Amino acid sequence: MPESFIKKYDITKRENTAKAVFEYNKILIDTLVDYIPSIKIQNAYYEMYGLEGIECYAKTIEYAKSAGLVVIADVKRGDIGATCKAYSKAHLSDSVFGADFMTINPYFGTDGMQPFIDDCNEMGKGVFILVKTSNPTSSQLQDLVVDCETVYEKCADLVIELGGKDTGKNGYNSIGAVVGATHPQQGIELREKMKNTFFLIPGYGAQGAGASDIAGMFDTNGLGGIVNSSRGIIGAWKKQETDDFAQAALNATLAMRDDIAKAIK
Amino acid sequence: MPESFIKKYDITKRENTAKAVFEYNKILIDTLVDYIPSIKIQNAYYEMYGLEGIECYAKTIEYAKSAGLVVIADVKRGDIGATCKAYSKAHLSDSVFGADFMTINPYFGTDGMQPFIDDCNEMGKGVFILVKTSNPTSSQLQDLVVDCETVYEKCADLVIELGGKDTGKNGYNSIGAVVGATHPQQGIELREKMKNTFFLIPGYGAQGAGASDIAGMFDTNGLGGIVNSSRGIIGAWKKQETDDFAQAALNATLAMRDDIAKAIK
Repeated sequence: MPESFIKKYDITKRENTAKAVFEYNKILIDTLVDYIPSIKIQNAYYEMYGLEGIECYAKTIEYAKSAGLVVIADVKRGDIGATCKAYSKAHLSDSVFGADFMTINPYFGTDGMQPFIDDCNEMGKGVFILVKTSNPTSSQLQDLVVDCETVYEKCADLVIELGGKDTGKNGYNSIGAVVGATHPQQGIELREKMKNTFFLIPGYGAQGAGASDIAGMFDTNGLGGIVNSSRGIIGAWKKQETDDFAQAALNATLAMRDDIAKAIK
Repeated sequence: MPESFIKKYDITKRENTAKAVFEYNKILIDTLVDYIPSIKIQNAYYEMYGLEGIECYAKTIEYAKSAGLVVIADVKRGDIGATCKAYSKAHLSDSVFGADFMTINPYFGTDGMQPFIDDCNEMGKGVFILVKTSNPTSSQLQDLVVDCETVYEKCADLVIELGGKDTGKNGYNSIGAVVGATHPQQGIELREKMKNTFFLIPGYGAQGAGASDIAGMFDTNGLGGIVNSSRGIIGAWKKQETDDFAQAALNATLAMRDDIAKAIK
């Protein structure tokens, strides 16, 4: 956040930091709501401020939903059996944090994912399961080759199976996959393999991927994925050398939209 | 919790549920503190009660630490780069939740683990990295075979590398591994392979593993791991058909201690 914005809050106190972040989020949501379908909220950056941070996380989800945005809780939770359901209750139930989607980790296999999906079916919500993540060392475990297939492809098979056969009108179900924008070739292959799986595509912008890297992750109708940019939008004021962070975020959002739309055509 | 205990709280309100859980935890900690070295707190069952639940999580960590217990925050977080540090700040920093250890997920590879470890080194804390989990479908990704080694063994190699060469006086470092009690043979092999890695061993009791299943996960001095029982202790009153949950928990704890000590000898 720009110094000129922060100085209105005494951020030596954690509750004021949380207030500043919520006000910042509100301004960005108000500015961008007509140009974006969804926001992804990174839970870690709220949890690090303790209870005050998590209250800000809850309020941001509520505000974004009331503005009409689809809210993706980027929490990357994963556990076994009944414990999964405690996490889906936390992040997806409207009686708790109430996001529309949450990200989950596949390392436990299907009995660590099915409980999330059962809850999603009951609540009308969805998940994005980590398949091929955007970071450099994602190769260490995800790219290991087993019987001519990588671990992330085996993971993709589990996601396909968990997603089942029912889809919405565009051919996608609510059990999505996280596929990093930084892996264009793997993205093309996964798009081919996962016909009914909607992608959450992080890594555009600050992590180095451009529109041409993600073009192959969409279907022939230009559908099938949502691209995330975090620092590229909320920190756009830095690159544009202005304190008007809302205008800078809008500029960056429109540029991102046009960039991606052109590459997909 | 037994009906006779719960009825003191109007648990139709979430803040009262949180109060009841904290009171229950306090009684268990007071009863067991002289017989156990550590408690593992499952974050999901607090997060599901929203802010009130997380406040109870924070208070339970604080109470257990002040009682002299080592606190393991079972949060199974995992993310990339700087985001990891937000999670380690949340759960390990004494200015936030302040646990001694946290569990983390290895799916991202080392650049999703090293930031946690850097923070641990700075704060004098530790992590347990999921290697071979206790649930039945852990086989789906973790047991895939790559060049004559399983994915969980490849993961174990990363944990060994991240742990480095420095150890405490018993030969273990603070970068531990989660190895499910339900996999005795794999546990023996991992103990052999991971000479300096301390194990967190879940799955004893309610998940079906007994002392003989975990005996091979300790070194020749009977050291090298900590065994977790959750429902087997906090819900022992059910099996013992009593409302005196504290006495039942103590009985179960002593029986578990003796059972394990005998098997290790």
